[in-house]
Amino acid sequence: MIHIAVLGFGVVGGGVVEVMEENASRIARSAAEEISVKYILDVRDFPENPWAALMVQDFSVIENDPDVRIVVETIGGAGVAYDFTKRALLHGKSVVTSNKELVATRGLELIRIAKERNVNYLFEASVGGGIPIIRPITQCLAANEIDEVYGILNGTTNYILTRMIACGVSFDEALKQAQEKGYAEKDPSADLEGLDACRKICILSDLCFGREVDVENVKTEGIAGVKAGDVESAKRLGYKIKLLGRGLRTGKDTVTAYVAPHLIPVGSLLSNVDGVMNGIVVHGNAIGEAMFYGAGAGKRPTASAVVADVIDAAKHFKARKYLDWDEASPGSFTDSDEVVSRWYVRAEGKDACLTEPMSKYEVMELTGGQVPLSLFRVLE
Amino acid sequence: MIHIAVLGFGVVGGGVVEVMEENASRIARSAAEEISVKYILDVRDFPENPWAALMVQDFSVIENDPDVRIVVETIGGAGVAYDFTKRALLHGKSVVTSNKELVATRGLELIRIAKERNVNYLFEASVGGGIPIIRPITQCLAANEIDEVYGILNGTTNYILTRMIACGVSFDEALKQAQEKGYAEKDPSADLEGLDACRKICILSDLCFGREVDVENVKTEGIAGVKAGDVESAKRLGYKIKLLGRGLRTGKDTVTAYVAPHLIPVGSLLSNVDGVMNGIVVHGNAIGEAMFYGAGAGKRPTASAVVADVIDAAKHFKARKYLDWDEASPGSFTDSDEVVSRWYVRAEGKDACLTEPMSKYEVMELTGGQVPLSLFRVLE
Repeated sequence: MIHIAVLGFGVVGGGVVEVMEENASRIARSAAEEISVKYILDVRDFPENPWAALMVQDFSVIENDPDVRIVVETIGGAGVAYDFTKRALLHGKSVVTSNKELVATRGLELIRIAKERNVNYLFEASVGGGIPIIRPITQCLAANEIDEVYGILNGTTNYILTRMIACGVSFDEALKQAQEKGYAEKDPSADLEGLDACRKICILSDLCFGREVDVENVKTEGIAGVKAGDVESAKRLGYKIKLLGRGLRTGKDTVTAYVAPHLIPVGSLLSNVDGVMNGIVVHGNAIGEAMFYGAGAGKRPTASAVVADVIDAAKHFKARKYLDWDEASPGSFTDSDEVVSRWYVRAEGKDACLTEPMSKYEVMELTGGQVPLSLFRVLE
Repeated sequence: MIHIAVLGFGVVGGGVVEVMEENASRIARSAAEEISVKYILDVRDFPENPWAALMVQDFSVIENDPDVRIVVETIGGAGVAYDFTKRALLHGKSVVTSNKELVATRGLELIRIAKERNVNYLFEASVGGGIPIIRPITQCLAANEIDEVYGILNGTTNYILTRMIACGVSFDEALKQAQEKGYAEKDPSADLEGLDACRKICILSDLCFGREVDVENVKTEGIAGVKAGDVESAKRLGYKIKLLGRGLRTGKDTVTAYVAPHLIPVGSLLSNVDGVMNGIVVHGNAIGEAMFYGAGAGKRPTASAVVADVIDAAKHFKARKYLDWDEASPGSFTDSDEVVSRWYVRAEGKDACLTEPMSKYEVMELTGGQVPLSLFRVLE
């Protein structure tokens, strides 16, 4: 019997406990041993819940219980989650998380601590929710030099854009619908401004290119600037507008990453990733192109990925997993505005136009004194 | 330094040697040790090739060399490939393969031998070419009860159907084009008749449902019966015709699998998997739906998957991987004709129609004395 502790009893933490119980026999078969939740840590009280007996509020109980070999961190943020993760690793426990902010900002440090203590820090659920993506990149594509990774990484913004495209509603109306359906939070700014996608593309870039991409360097543009007129123009030109996170090699030892709305050709597979779904494309020098699709968020899909990591950790108490990358070196990050592509430009009194391949600086020079209303990259 | 041997110097074997050399430093970084090809076995002579010094024709050289820890089998078929695989495993070497026929027909036995000898038998490349699918199913979805798996598993037939749909050409003309482009073999019957897809859906079903699905039980219908008139009718009704392999649970302890052309709604992601590309959909009770897309065949994509398995084997000399399933039990396989779905029926003198959900037997009764020209399932 392997004992685990779940930190944070919110949507994801609750989903983990639920899936662990519901699929217990399947999980035991996969792990070749029963896995049981010994503690659930949350500062709040949940007197009515069926797992009330497992609830604790003091992390040191978990930290000092040698029975607990694996800690699941679903608290979120880089505050107390960072503190608890570090302490768990230092006490020789493997940690599994869905916390993209923590992995994107402190991942390198936490992975090193895990390495020193010969335990695992696993985070399949931090990108793409339930979609298998971290393990496929690090294991299945381990024979490839990966030159590009991009995708629809945020379900909230994809739902809003999908509504705007399919129903011709305005951004504000689409946002209201997303909030009514529970797809957008009351304060949806981290999604809308692209911050969520930014953290995810940083993690993907770290793993694909083997070198730390600093969240601070990643230019991040959300979807607030996408107007109904752009959606219309894009359709007329044979494109859909999608918010993409994109990371790519720009030279032998240089990479870039950014988040921005893109025009994607109608008929391409990614343009058909609609609603709250996510899709991630990886280019490698042996495999060519591969795409991974599924629910990028939600209680049970995210729990699916977290519990898979728990099983993996349980099978690898003595072996370290593949996840790792190097520190950034000076000059290893290219400003994404220098990356050449075709652009969609819509300016006051002018129709939208698709310019020749050029950098963002050149396009801005091209549009001259006239401030463009919209300026988006076109994905070929 | 880890030494490997490659059996069979055809398209895939050649690709493996090529990728091993080209991406040597990336592979060494992934495996945490250099990996080197010590032998290439083929009955043919290749005097001009740069690896001539590595060529051997006698398997016992490889079998008896304790330096060789991993054997890559890319011979194909279930004859000599079976013999060599078994001998390699019995000599304590891990075996990696792209051989779907051998895995589908002898996989259970070979996995058991591998288990006894505490080595690995890995076959990521046997389904979906380069697409990561075996590892995602067995590891990333390990917390799910999987109830269905289906997909476009054969690039040759998908290319032919795509040409028929996009250009309105006949089956014969599309086949000619596929052969000219090298997408179809001179004798394309294993592809056209669905045998290739059958082997793949058997492997996927074995892994998803944990129980052996016998190739002999799987009703397999190819694409020769798809007429230009069906393609037209389907389009008019809002569908595309695609050849699918499909495995599903039919009860608590029963499963089925089959291969047949299906009508798929235009606009669904799978309907946009065109040309020689493959797409595989998995349904789990936690993740919901996930899809995996990429090149299902070809020298380098397939080599990408094979070499990933070599790296994995190299990192797990002392640990066994997850791949395993049980023997079939009497009555555990349901005849796929009993599986209820909507059907497309086109009969002499009658238009195509989409009937209500029913089993194949009921539809055939429904059409009465009139022999239907075409009878395909409709995927909802």
